[in-house]
Amino acid sequence: MNEVVSPQSRSTQSANRWLSAFAAALARDDAAAAAALFDSECYWRDLIAFTWNIKTSEGRGAITEMLKATLATVRPTNWKLDGDATDSNGVTEAWFTFETAFARGKGHLRLKSDKCWTLLTTAQELKGFEEKKGPTRPFGTDHGIHPGRKNWAELKSEEEATLGYTKQPYVVIVGGGQGGLALGARLKRLGVPTIIVEKNERAGDSWRKRYKSLCLHDPVWYDHLPYLPFPDHWPVFSPKDKIGDWLEMYAKVMELNYWSSTTCKSARYDEAKGEWTVEVERNGKPVTLRPKQLVIATGMSAVPNLPSYPGMDSFKGTQHHSSKHPGGEGWGGQKCVVIGSNNSAHDICADLWENGADVTMVQRSSTHIARSDSLMDLGMGALYSEAAVANGITTDKADLIFASIPYGLLAGFQKPIYQEMAKRDADFYGRLEKAGFMLDWGEDGSGLFMKYLRRGSGYYIDVGASELICNGSIKLKSGVGVERIKEHSVLLSDGTELPADLIVYATGYGSMNGWAAQLISKEVADKVGKCWGLGSNTTKDPGPWEGELRNMWKPTQQEGLWFHGGNLHQSRHYSQFLALQLKARMEGLPTPVYGLGKVHHLN
Amino acid sequence: MNEVVSPQSRSTQSANRWLSAFAAALARDDAAAAAALFDSECYWRDLIAFTWNIKTSEGRGAITEMLKATLATVRPTNWKLDGDATDSNGVTEAWFTFETAFARGKGHLRLKSDKCWTLLTTAQELKGFEEKKGPTRPFGTDHGIHPGRKNWAELKSEEEATLGYTKQPYVVIVGGGQGGLALGARLKRLGVPTIIVEKNERAGDSWRKRYKSLCLHDPVWYDHLPYLPFPDHWPVFSPKDKIGDWLEMYAKVMELNYWSSTTCKSARYDEAKGEWTVEVERNGKPVTLRPKQLVIATGMSAVPNLPSYPGMDSFKGTQHHSSKHPGGEGWGGQKCVVIGSNNSAHDICADLWENGADVTMVQRSSTHIARSDSLMDLGMGALYSEAAVANGITTDKADLIFASIPYGLLAGFQKPIYQEMAKRDADFYGRLEKAGFMLDWGEDGSGLFMKYLRRGSGYYIDVGASELICNGSIKLKSGVGVERIKEHSVLLSDGTELPADLIVYATGYGSMNGWAAQLISKEVADKVGKCWGLGSNTTKDPGPWEGELRNMWKPTQQEGLWFHGGNLHQSRHYSQFLALQLKARMEGLPTPVYGLGKVHHLN
Repeated sequence: MNEVVSPQSRSTQSANRWLSAFAAALARDDAAAAAALFDSECYWRDLIAFTWNIKTSEGRGAITEMLKATLATVRPTNWKLDGDATDSNGVTEAWFTFETAFARGKGHLRLKSDKCWTLLTTAQELKGFEEKKGPTRPFGTDHGIHPGRKNWAELKSEEEATLGYTKQPYVVIVGGGQGGLALGARLKRLGVPTIIVEKNERAGDSWRKRYKSLCLHDPVWYDHLPYLPFPDHWPVFSPKDKIGDWLEMYAKVMELNYWSSTTCKSARYDEAKGEWTVEVERNGKPVTLRPKQLVIATGMSAVPNLPSYPGMDSFKGTQHHSSKHPGGEGWGGQKCVVIGSNNSAHDICADLWENGADVTMVQRSSTHIARSDSLMDLGMGALYSEAAVANGITTDKADLIFASIPYGLLAGFQKPIYQEMAKRDADFYGRLEKAGFMLDWGEDGSGLFMKYLRRGSGYYIDVGASELICNGSIKLKSGVGVERIKEHSVLLSDGTELPADLIVYATGYGSMNGWAAQLISKEVADKVGKCWGLGSNTTKDPGPWEGELRNMWKPTQQEGLWFHGGNLHQSRHYSQFLALQLKARMEGLPTPVYGLGKVHHLN
Repeated sequence: MNEVVSPQSRSTQSANRWLSAFAAALARDDAAAAAALFDSECYWRDLIAFTWNIKTSEGRGAITEMLKATLATVRPTNWKLDGDATDSNGVTEAWFTFETAFARGKGHLRLKSDKCWTLLTTAQELKGFEEKKGPTRPFGTDHGIHPGRKNWAELKSEEEATLGYTKQPYVVIVGGGQGGLALGARLKRLGVPTIIVEKNERAGDSWRKRYKSLCLHDPVWYDHLPYLPFPDHWPVFSPKDKIGDWLEMYAKVMELNYWSSTTCKSARYDEAKGEWTVEVERNGKPVTLRPKQLVIATGMSAVPNLPSYPGMDSFKGTQHHSSKHPGGEGWGGQKCVVIGSNNSAHDICADLWENGADVTMVQRSSTHIARSDSLMDLGMGALYSEAAVANGITTDKADLIFASIPYGLLAGFQKPIYQEMAKRDADFYGRLEKAGFMLDWGEDGSGLFMKYLRRGSGYYIDVGASELICNGSIKLKSGVGVERIKEHSVLLSDGTELPADLIVYATGYGSMNGWAAQLISKEVADKVGKCWGLGSNTTKDPGPWEGELRNMWKPTQQEGLWFHGGNLHQSRHYSQFLALQLKARMEGLPTPVYGLGKVHHLN
């Protein structure tokens, strides 16, 4: 009999064959044989399934080493292809599931000529400690009769009254923005007692208190929080107050222990007890919390970089960092100077101009500009868009596809997007350059998202301000530094003097370990080192190559100290893995960390 | 060549053939030919697609008549099967889509020997007035530069400050429980300016203020509100305060104009102007609203039936209707008599007993009892359960499947469920009868849901109280009436005297047109007549047969007056059709109502 084999099932067969060989090598603890199934250029990205770390092993040697260190405890089994493999441009892609001694996992592989080019392994849930959902959701009422029973509202009040006072939380999260909320929700579903400490009065205030015109720069499909997606009429770009209200609702509906109007004063770790002492002030009253784990989720953009120019003290007008800028209202007719040329600088300049101010932007170094429409189309469309939804790409799937591209390959994957963008918007870029604006596309032409990962800065997603620069409505001084601030002006390095009633320093933010310095100690901040950045050896992202974001969502050199942050996509996706790491520790599972990051930079 | 036809595609072919013949008959305006395609026993249920009404036409004659009256304006076209047909027990079932002059529709058909047994047609959206969702969702920010632009928060404040004062809403909904909220959300998405008037301080208070142990009696899969489903960890049976918080969140996230702490004092209709004058008191201040449409959504269980027994005035203890009963706390050791034997009576008795009270239930007439587990399994499992979710039955699909069974057939569909239940729980029912409890299964054995539809009463979904009756913990006096209330006791018709510190009258609720009597006038209430009930000619549901719930979610004899209510399933599903009826009127589409219900009963 002739068997008709479609190209589709040929890829599936090839993926199946690879997965079986791989599983067999792992089952007999043969790290070398497993590594030999990889291409000479190869990446294995692991999200806590093998390494209890977020770790990419690059090359056969690194993969062998990782397997030798982990196989004995991880004991992976039950590798199964999940759906059919697909083929494009000579690369076979497939999804699979697997188990380890402690977890159920999902993964993704890319084969080139039957050898593995990229492998992603992720732990999805801990065996015996699964989230209660769907068929295992709680019943809600205890049918039957229970004298003296407490109802939901009473149990909730009781938890609120005791947690942090007579009962200690296992985790304290400092910062109740999208990061703290997403992680808090995951921990809640995992049954990890957690308190979120937030200085503002209401969840969502960190958005509400920003400048008036602010909307999310990422589109809605990229921004869902875990468990409770936005309804399908939600706008593409959420206005700040609307997202603020959503976050406030989320904290309530997910029943998080959210301590608003609470300032974290200090934290110190007792190595012997393995416990933090966290001093907070809740509604003006001191409370001491003693969690085992401390998560800093105050935002990767939250320690303002305020420059120290000579003469700043003498300035007679108003000056503040962009994070403190309330908006352009009231500045009509006045002279405003904005130092900086990234997202906030552009948004603030446009808002001031809309309010009738005389605005000058000071561009000290080149900036990458991507028009919002083009970025949505070219950069996100395949995974996060209405079209992706229609193609059946759920948020979870999109997150995993994105995670499956190792950072070592990502820049290469990104470059064609920006080459296409440069072509599509050539006229726009021409006009910007003609206006004197210094453009770049990242040092290697890999564009916006790589800049975000490497340094968290250096770009503007254009939603209109660039046109104001092109047509001169926003005045531009580019390629200059600030020499000094005078009583009523800004003196630039080329000798120009810009009269100023208002100076906004849109000069960015420092590394998140600055928070550790503020809350814990400089010693601990230095011990942990710089957060964020890949070690790409480009501007503001010094090497050596790390291959993952430094210190984010994974163990640090400080026992019990974690950093959580990033945009809504990252808060959603990585909170899953951070939550599982914390849950595993609470339950006393062995969590030997492989490849804990070394510290190369203090901040 | 031999063509292999699977049974599956034979059904699909048969459904296709029927639909083509039907479409052709309608296209040539041949009502008789269309009706001839139906079986001698046949039902066509229409949700506003043909009739601008919620109307079931029963039999070929009624179908011919309906088509003759509607075809010329409806002009249905574009009938297409949606997916494959299925076959079971000689009945072919299929989904289809179609269009009318004004709407896009979905429908469902059941064929018996190639003739139509049941047909469902529903309007899903109005052409040119579709909800903005998915690909047509709003952008959220106006990219580009707009001097003096207002942001989302400012526009929202402006709407809140003007709507109802300098701008009039098109719709006023009286009552902000699940009914008002679901309808409000639909109207919001359709761009119909609406104010919801709610007497309580917070959305959800109508749940929060009930007795402490209350949980929803329907499971979570049945209870989703439109657009924003519960997350998948939501408990099966929502505790009252939790559902209250969800409703409060819903009002906020859906951006409804929700006037809490607002009492509706009166409403009158100006026939000439086609406008209501609605007097409300908002936070103690009078406001006059002038909507075109008035929706009463105060709950089908909201006009308490307080009985008038002789001697009630003389009672020295505490007495109140069940709707005013705060819970059993504080009644420990005291004598409590609960008059009634339906849901509230059972819940209240159990709660009092749990609090240590001496409780007697007075059962005046027989009651249908269904154990919660059995009801979930047998009665709801196919459409609303975790298993249904796993089978790909979305909430929308479940609602349409349920809607596809005409009320004329529903009792027949329900009977086997309750026969099975009687078998499964035979021991339980035996013990209840032994305790003296008078049981029934509905007059025709069709059980709980039919009782709900016919009279909205007469049953208890057992979550534990029945056991307390079986074992005598709750004392039972059954088959007796109340003769009179004395200073410290209840005197029953059999001469028994029950000493009482507390009397709870769990004696049910009146028809929703009682609200029209209170708010508008007795004249209008009488003009509109009884709400709810099918006309089944069983107890509390007098004939003639109506075949739909009287006056619910559809035009009434009073222009501009609508009734909305029911459980969460009904609030969700029927709000869609009520919202479309209101939107069509606002946009001035022709909405000729076919088969407006006659009034046979004043309440």
